[in-house]
Amino acid sequence: MDELPGALGTSASLALRLGQAIFSIASLLFMCLDVEFYSYTAFCFLVTIMGLVIPWSLTLAMVDTFSIFVKRPSCQSRILSIVVMGDWILSFLSLAASSSSASVTDLLMMVSGGSFCRAKLCGRYQLSAAMAFLSWFLSLASSLFNLWHLASL
Amino acid sequence: MDELPGALGTSASLALRLGQAIFSIASLLFMCLDVEFYSYTAFCFLVTIMGLVIPWSLTLAMVDTFSIFVKRPSCQSRILSIVVMGDWILSFLSLAASSSSASVTDLLMMVSGGSFCRAKLCGRYQLSAAMAFLSWFLSLASSLFNLWHLASL
Repeated sequence: MDELPGALGTSASLALRLGQAIFSIASLLFMCLDVEFYSYTAFCFLVTIMGLVIPWSLTLAMVDTFSIFVKRPSCQSRILSIVVMGDWILSFLSLAASSSSASVTDLLMMVSGGSFCRAKLCGRYQLSAAMAFLSWFLSLASSLFNLWHLASL
Repeated sequence: MDELPGALGTSASLALRLGQAIFSIASLLFMCLDVEFYSYTAFCFLVTIMGLVIPWSLTLAMVDTFSIFVKRPSCQSRILSIVVMGDWILSFLSLAASSSSASVTDLLMMVSGGSFCRAKLCGRYQLSAAMAFLSWFLSLASSLFNLWHLASL
């Protein structure tokens, strides 16, 4: 491995994965703390995607940890291809989910003039969309680094 | 140029660019044929992004045409970097815009139980979001090919 920072198996990659997992969990918690999210397709989509991102990020974080501490240079091209594919697909899905949730929250606040958004409900949806957006950003960084590494192998 | 199909200056790239421009124009037309789109943030976002994608795709289509017919191998790394950056940014923006529009249209159809969506209005919004999604897909293909080409230079 030629030590591209951020590629699979480096400490920068581990940090990115942990960040993705933390933001995804935060997004999921903000969305699921009330039980009304399943009335809206966009929010269900967000919950589904965040439920996919969390195990993916944690699994790859474990691979990174293993690679850092046991010093096994697991730089097989086929494994890296699978990781890059999964990263890209999840990255696009989480971008779509976060922008959908953000726009639906915006519309809900606008249409009802505040009557729909009782108490802190809409604020929670906004926070959830923001967390999903941050998770997408870290996921994009991971996938760019891994794609670059794959292309320069 | 080592003739990677789909990279800047090839006929496959020209086809991709023309496809992006056609789908973006179709999306813009479906959205703008009625004048109610500016009431909703997501639809304004879609119109803005499609208004950016169209000149970008047409400019790069002209570059491709020039490169194909005049046979100038304009494979400078700096120009390719700018093209890749622009492609990626527009690709993410158009994915966000199309998924936002799709989810807002879905919510509008659901909330009002059909009373909001008179005549063909919601059908047009859906078509517009679908066209934007197709435009995103072609834009993604272009940017992947160009990034791969840039990384293997």
